[in-house]
Amino acid sequence: MGEFELIERIRSRAAPGSGVVVGIGDDAAVLAPTPGCELVVTTDSIVLDRHFTADWPGSNVGQLAAQANLSDLAAMGASPRWALLALTLPAIDEAWIDAFLDGFLAAAGSAGMTLVGGNLARGPLNIGVHLVGEVPAGQAVTRCGARPGDRIAVTGTVGDAAAALSLGEAASPELLDRLRRPRARLQAGETLRSSARAMIDLSDGLLADLAHLLAPGQGAELDLDALPASAALLEAVADPVERWRLQTGGGSDYELLVVLPPDADLDALSKAGGVALTAIGRVVEGQGVACRSATRAVPAGLGRGWDHFDDD
Amino acid sequence: MGEFELIERIRSRAAPGSGVVVGIGDDAAVLAPTPGCELVVTTDSIVLDRHFTADWPGSNVGQLAAQANLSDLAAMGASPRWALLALTLPAIDEAWIDAFLDGFLAAAGSAGMTLVGGNLARGPLNIGVHLVGEVPAGQAVTRCGARPGDRIAVTGTVGDAAAALSLGEAASPELLDRLRRPRARLQAGETLRSSARAMIDLSDGLLADLAHLLAPGQGAELDLDALPASAALLEAVADPVERWRLQTGGGSDYELLVVLPPDADLDALSKAGGVALTAIGRVVEGQGVACRSATRAVPAGLGRGWDHFDDD
Repeated sequence: MGEFELIERIRSRAAPGSGVVVGIGDDAAVLAPTPGCELVVTTDSIVLDRHFTADWPGSNVGQLAAQANLSDLAAMGASPRWALLALTLPAIDEAWIDAFLDGFLAAAGSAGMTLVGGNLARGPLNIGVHLVGEVPAGQAVTRCGARPGDRIAVTGTVGDAAAALSLGEAASPELLDRLRRPRARLQAGETLRSSARAMIDLSDGLLADLAHLLAPGQGAELDLDALPASAALLEAVADPVERWRLQTGGGSDYELLVVLPPDADLDALSKAGGVALTAIGRVVEGQGVACRSATRAVPAGLGRGWDHFDDD
Repeated sequence: MGEFELIERIRSRAAPGSGVVVGIGDDAAVLAPTPGCELVVTTDSIVLDRHFTADWPGSNVGQLAAQANLSDLAAMGASPRWALLALTLPAIDEAWIDAFLDGFLAAAGSAGMTLVGGNLARGPLNIGVHLVGEVPAGQAVTRCGARPGDRIAVTGTVGDAAAALSLGEAASPELLDRLRRPRARLQAGETLRSSARAMIDLSDGLLADLAHLLAPGQGAELDLDALPASAALLEAVADPVERWRLQTGGGSDYELLVVLPPDADLDALSKAGGVALTAIGRVVEGQGVACRSATRAVPAGLGRGWDHFDDD
């Protein structure tokens, strides 16, 4: 199969979508944006042995590629619209590509997003995803806007992906699923758009990502006892201190970390967003993040964040 | 230098631009599209040993990455607005990255395009570029629209990049420049928007790209004697038949191949587009491309197009 057959194969599998004036197959795609909306654009590359390993099924790679990018749109409160896929492949492996598309297109479809174009090149495996979302003008949620006294909350549960990485082959299917089949919190992001002061998705680790939400002169108090843990994490990691390390330092959870006004109604937001929203701390004047627990001593130097150029 | 320092370095070098609500440094960029316009989006990956070699200066790699993508916008008649850069790097080499940015940002600046975000990952070198352009609604030029009797024209000159590849170290600086420092024909693309029936940029080779402009039941007559050649090509390749091979089969010229109504005023379009537009053939009923010459015998099987998965 050559380049043009592969493009035709991808084109035939991509579902039609709204706002697509010219889709796959021309020099570029032409899209009709919604009047009154701003565009929210993001890109992310998924690399072998960094974000996934050779033993991953292609469908999981496709799912991760889509969801990691969708998570960035969720963090802005945006609604996904269109996707471009830049595939650099060492060779054309039809079965792998089909499996990859299974995962990618399923994730795109459930997010209401249409694949409208992309690029193929030959080289070491690299999966580039480029998304265009929309948000009503002026309503995008950025990382800036936290005020002292605001509450810090997180969607879902944290630490599963880090536990899966840490446990390796001993990880339970539930934990592995969080690593390989994350789900961007799109509904929660759109719901939180109207009340969030600041928001980010958890990709580098809770403490590292929280630091991005604090302005100079701001710090945070984090209640370790409140960190939401899944049943799978509680079962796999019995030691609470070890759990804290995974929950505060591990990346790839793709949950939303959000700063809300003190009077925000977390129950109502949880219901509307389709996922539990748990208060885990507070923005304060000062600097740094103070980790607190009412139940046991907090070890010094809880996990640090994930730098994509770290060697470990 | 870590990931965050590198992002900050890139951010500090990117010029401010219009329509940027949120730029580099958040989960995604937020952009204000122009009312009445459609979006034109494209992505392209530049890969070591496919599109460039290790001996290229970083600034040339940056320039190629920008121009190859800008050329896709030019081919739609679009105006560039915003760029995202997905860099996968084996390590952080500050000097190389600065040189790369020199080339990329210079090309972006002269195209009126702002770098608004991107992604960094560690892995085998891969440069992903994602562009968002705009075009007045309904005016994008696609590959479809040619009619029998239409004229086929090309901007600038063709064959230089192929000659540079073919000659290797023996290539003149002028030829090398066409390969490493192509210039997307943006002004010509915008000018041709109002009269072009169909348009494509020359990236895979003239015959291969021309085939994309012909509908089923359409063919073309191509006048080999009319193919515009640069002085550098005429000097480097004396044999006209060998020149034809390079001009019809070689890729990476990044000129525009355009189908125009029979009565189009090429002189006026050349003047407005800032580059010579040369008539090289005609769309006919039938199929295939007939290569003609009034001066010498045309060899069978003139060069084929470039498939990014070919081994040669």
